[in-house]
Amino acid sequence: MHEFDLIARIRARAALRGDVVLGIGDDCALLAPPPGMQLAVTMDTLNAGVHFPPETAPADIGWKALAVNLSDLAAMGADPAWCTLSLSLPEASEDFIDGFSDGFLSLAQQHDVALIGGDTTRGPLSISVTAHGLIEPDSALRRAGAQVGDAIWVSGTLGDAAGALRQWQAGAPMAPALQARLDRPTPRVALGRALRGIASSAIDISDGLLADLAHVCRASGVGARLDARALPSSAALRQAFDAATCLALQASGGDDYELCFTAPAAQRDVIHALSQTLNLPLTHIGEIVTGTGVCCEDVDVAAAGYQHFA
Amino acid sequence: MHEFDLIARIRARAALRGDVVLGIGDDCALLAPPPGMQLAVTMDTLNAGVHFPPETAPADIGWKALAVNLSDLAAMGADPAWCTLSLSLPEASEDFIDGFSDGFLSLAQQHDVALIGGDTTRGPLSISVTAHGLIEPDSALRRAGAQVGDAIWVSGTLGDAAGALRQWQAGAPMAPALQARLDRPTPRVALGRALRGIASSAIDISDGLLADLAHVCRASGVGARLDARALPSSAALRQAFDAATCLALQASGGDDYELCFTAPAAQRDVIHALSQTLNLPLTHIGEIVTGTGVCCEDVDVAAAGYQHFA
Repeated sequence: MHEFDLIARIRARAALRGDVVLGIGDDCALLAPPPGMQLAVTMDTLNAGVHFPPETAPADIGWKALAVNLSDLAAMGADPAWCTLSLSLPEASEDFIDGFSDGFLSLAQQHDVALIGGDTTRGPLSISVTAHGLIEPDSALRRAGAQVGDAIWVSGTLGDAAGALRQWQAGAPMAPALQARLDRPTPRVALGRALRGIASSAIDISDGLLADLAHVCRASGVGARLDARALPSSAALRQAFDAATCLALQASGGDDYELCFTAPAAQRDVIHALSQTLNLPLTHIGEIVTGTGVCCEDVDVAAAGYQHFA
Repeated sequence: MHEFDLIARIRARAALRGDVVLGIGDDCALLAPPPGMQLAVTMDTLNAGVHFPPETAPADIGWKALAVNLSDLAAMGADPAWCTLSLSLPEASEDFIDGFSDGFLSLAQQHDVALIGGDTTRGPLSISVTAHGLIEPDSALRRAGAQVGDAIWVSGTLGDAAGALRQWQAGAPMAPALQARLDRPTPRVALGRALRGIASSAIDISDGLLADLAHVCRASGVGARLDARALPSSAALRQAFDAATCLALQASGGDDYELCFTAPAAQRDVIHALSQTLNLPLTHIGEIVTGTGVCCEDVDVAAAGYQHFA
């Protein structure tokens, strides 16, 4: 199977948008951004054996490759618009391409993202995606905006993906609810969009809460104090691990792709209402304080350096 | 060496532009495209052992990873603006990063391209780049515009990169002039820009003249007739190979990143003048005809499927 056939196979299934002047098939795609909008651009790569177990289903790989990029757009509050995909495969496989496309394009469709171009090459299994979002000037959620006194919030539950990984690494079967979170993370796009004008900063949790919140603190020139007992956990996580392990996974496990954001205390009711509207738990987990770094009593911070799968 | 250190090391050297609202360091970059301009977007990946010999100097890898993407922008006639870089490395190496950055950023600087984000991951050596260019509406050079009766032109000389590769594959030393073309291709950005309004179609030669021109023919619904004796060659190529081998390399060798374009016959003098202005040979090599496919007497077309390095 030739490179061009692979491209044609994906192209035939890719949806377009009105702002795509020219999609897959020329030297470049051509796009017409809406007047006055800014672009949010992110690029993330997943490598087999590093970011996912080699036996992961192709559809899950496709989903995740796009999800981790949409999560970055969500963390800026941007509306997803277009993406490019570069897929390196050890050998051309129709089955892989079809499964991969199922996962990738179903998530793209959910968020009205047009696949506009990319590359297929021979090489060890690796997927790079560049995602483009649209956002009005001065409305992006940045890491640098956290203020002393702001409340720290997190969406959903923490530690589930890392819990699945822990089971996999131990050679145990993964609990289905945890595995679903590892394989098919949900980018919190609607939440990010809704937080414009409400949150003072935001980041998505890919490296673990403590590590990612530390990025926010560094960028904002502040510190953070977390209440370990407030960190949200799923029933599946509590069922699978003892309390101390749960807490370590919640604080330091990556790959959940929940949003961690800060907001003035006065936004508390607005955020609770948003949680209802989106049907998504939003939990107050701490405060921004003067100083540097993230303080979280009862957590072994030495375990904070989550390094994904391998 | 940690991922964030690698990013910091590249970030410290990346130049910015006035239209970059937020560069490397947040979940996304933020860009403000000039009003009324369209975006040209392309993404290409280079894998070690597939697209370049593993022993290639890091600076040359960096150069080439950006060059092949700028070449796609050139083929559309777009002005390069921004790029993102995803770099997978087997191990974190300051020496590799510094060399790679030398090559990558020196080419970026030549074309006023801002590196705005990306990713560094652990994995087999692989480089993905997404490049963004700006172009006025309705002025892009597309593959689909070739008309029967148009002249076919090519820039520079053909077959040099493939000649170097041929020598490398034979275990012979590469002629320096040929190796330079393989390792440090020149994206024909100024030419692409100048061809707006003159050329009816364009493509860059990455897979070989015959294969790439065939893409133009397919997209335009036309055929092409090439004059094999007109194909331009370098003195270095003629010195290294016999005439038949030269011709095969010129017709079918990839990785030259010259532009092949079509233009109405009436543009002949304008194109000759452009060649003078740019100090770049532009050679009339054939005609667009009715029918399908590319006809080039005296060339063994079976050799046309150039598959890069491996």
